[in-house]
Amino acid sequence: MKTLVVVSHPEINNSQTQQFLLQGAKLLDVTRHHVEGLKKIDVDNEQRLLMEADRIIFQFPLYWYAAPAGLKNWEDKVLTRNFIYGDGNDNLMDKEFGIVVSTGMPLKEFQRGGSENITIDQIMAPLRAIADRAKMKVLPVFTIAQFQYMKEEQQMQLLIDYQRYLTQEYPDTLSRREEWFEREFSDRLKNFDETNCTECETILNTFIQQKEDLEQLKSTISLIKQGEDD
Amino acid sequence: MKTLVVVSHPEINNSQTQQFLLQGAKLLDVTRHHVEGLKKIDVDNEQRLLMEADRIIFQFPLYWYAAPAGLKNWEDKVLTRNFIYGDGNDNLMDKEFGIVVSTGMPLKEFQRGGSENITIDQIMAPLRAIADRAKMKVLPVFTIAQFQYMKEEQQMQLLIDYQRYLTQEYPDTLSRREEWFEREFSDRLKNFDETNCTECETILNTFIQQKEDLEQLKSTISLIKQGEDD
Repeated sequence: MKTLVVVSHPEINNSQTQQFLLQGAKLLDVTRHHVEGLKKIDVDNEQRLLMEADRIIFQFPLYWYAAPAGLKNWEDKVLTRNFIYGDGNDNLMDKEFGIVVSTGMPLKEFQRGGSENITIDQIMAPLRAIADRAKMKVLPVFTIAQFQYMKEEQQMQLLIDYQRYLTQEYPDTLSRREEWFEREFSDRLKNFDETNCTECETILNTFIQQKEDLEQLKSTISLIKQGEDD
Repeated sequence: MKTLVVVSHPEINNSQTQQFLLQGAKLLDVTRHHVEGLKKIDVDNEQRLLMEADRIIFQFPLYWYAAPAGLKNWEDKVLTRNFIYGDGNDNLMDKEFGIVVSTGMPLKEFQRGGSENITIDQIMAPLRAIADRAKMKVLPVFTIAQFQYMKEEQQMQLLIDYQRYLTQEYPDTLSRREEWFEREFSDRLKNFDETNCTECETILNTFIQQKEDLEQLKSTISLIKQGEDD
């Protein structure tokens, strides 16, 4: 699966969150594309990048309940009507569309009565409408709230969840997670120093062993459930 | 009442709708401000304009279920957190916020199952959230659908409705409409050639006479209703 991450941030080098996500994306086989960093928007090239991808992610900080102006400018130029749906075109049909959004506000404020008084889902409705128009498959939004207050452990969890959001098959199921972890872990082992490898391989083997135990457990539960239904 | 119309359109001279609205706004005592026409966004000056207004209108064509990038750029620069709500500030509190949006799609497509599959109200939720954050009073959206297909009579009706949206007291009631028409008609009479004045004054007097008849009718109906309640 090919993933294209269209990133928008007017001061990306000063953004802790974006720099952190950048490190996470670097370990993966994804194309990352910073719209404010483009000298000129080459519409043909941008459209080609979109067409080559299987999953397209818009990644940005929330500015006034929307993406920064840079992304809107990119949308207004690149997403021509003809490219999205005009003339019977369906260049992006069946591709997946995801959003990674960061905010400095606590998540609980994004509801009626909260200080923001609007949900993340409502905020993202216009972007989702573009995806609908292009007949894309819409993924749930990946929201990062108050990154700067996260403990290291939370940040590590975020990194894994983010990496899965970029490259794991959708919808998210336990077996797809297992598959993703096993594949990523094996891949990354190959890039490790020889010295660390023994320990890493033990971890991988334990992971695989536990995965098999889990499979065993699942079929036992399945049998019990069948008994209940009889 | 002072009205500020913040207009966003990347090619305003080529837009029939915007040129038509411009003619309508010229007859009124409103400040009109084209964001893409600004050489540089002077944040202090823009904030001063906003603070001087009683009613602030954002006017733009719908591009991908949102305002054009130019307006978002203006928002991201001018609407600093500190200006809108930071530090206990409430510079825009109790001012009215309205939206004039034009679209080339028929209005009926803006609903679930329509080709746009999203309502105008849902599309405008992020802008309304800014107004909520600033403790402004939100006016209903003024939507102009398929201006290019309107007959002359429909366009004239649109012009009046638009002018009322910019300057009539809110909420819209019959008596406020009457008041607005009488005031605007008298004002415009003053700018007419002497030659036309007799006919115009007749119209104005007829209008005032009918308004009085209507008042009479209303009190009669009111008496009948009282009778029903007894």
